[in-house]
Amino acid sequence: MKKLAVGLVLCVPLVLGAGEENPKEAVRKVLEAQVKAWNKGDLPAFMEGYWQAPDLTFFSGNTKTAGWQATLERYRKKYQTDKKDMGKLTFQDLEIEILGADHALVKGRFLLKMKEESSTGLFTLILKKLPTGWRIIHDHTSG
Amino acid sequence: MKKLAVGLVLCVPLVLGAGEENPKEAVRKVLEAQVKAWNKGDLPAFMEGYWQAPDLTFFSGNTKTAGWQATLERYRKKYQTDKKDMGKLTFQDLEIEILGADHALVKGRFLLKMKEESSTGLFTLILKKLPTGWRIIHDHTSG
Repeated sequence: MKKLAVGLVLCVPLVLGAGEENPKEAVRKVLEAQVKAWNKGDLPAFMEGYWQAPDLTFFSGNTKTAGWQATLERYRKKYQTDKKDMGKLTFQDLEIEILGADHALVKGRFLLKMKEESSTGLFTLILKKLPTGWRIIHDHTSG
Repeated sequence: MKKLAVGLVLCVPLVLGAGEENPKEAVRKVLEAQVKAWNKGDLPAFMEGYWQAPDLTFFSGNTKTAGWQATLERYRKKYQTDKKDMGKLTFQDLEIEILGADHALVKGRFLLKMKEESSTGLFTLILKKLPTGWRIIHDHTSG
């Protein structure tokens, strides 16, 4: 038993080194990839940050959207009427908190500069560590 | 080893029975107590659902409030100008999801009927299991 315990303790940093990255950094990368995708006008790449499932929930102001597909359509309707003007997105004041082993809470502010108007607001995200990586399972945005 | 394993399995329901209640039920009770307190016009009792700490965060629309004290003052300013009209609060479509051992995600809709006007909106809550019980550590509300 003792040998096994020592073996396990030694394994942890090795396993971490071999692929598992710091969870906060992993979450931050998902958000950075979203911002990058948005600013290239690449909505499908932006949507990769979200859990591709019917149980994804998206709250915006007083409106609930349920499921990945409906969330994509909402973004399309709202921001892709003219494909070249999704605007420039920035996230500010990001706070990432890891909850237990598999979840993260992210709080932040978005700024969206469009040709004609700009908007800003607050968001709360819940991410879950899935086999495919960290994904947003719930998004609450208001501005 | 076998005996120990059986012992552990038998212990779990005993321990649960002795005090620890089902986490979803515990979270639901915190919210029910908040609604009850609100509907009695008892703001201090309502505020007991929140983590009494400077790190509590409260997002409402485009406004961030930081800390329990500031959150209490915001509620006072907004709803207690006439103490007897905090209105009647109801929560609808509550979804409680336990995240790991010590956190919970709650999604729902509030309805607030006041004498002169009513309002409704969506909320996302993150609760943490603290030594004093489950408490809201982050609230995002929009309507």
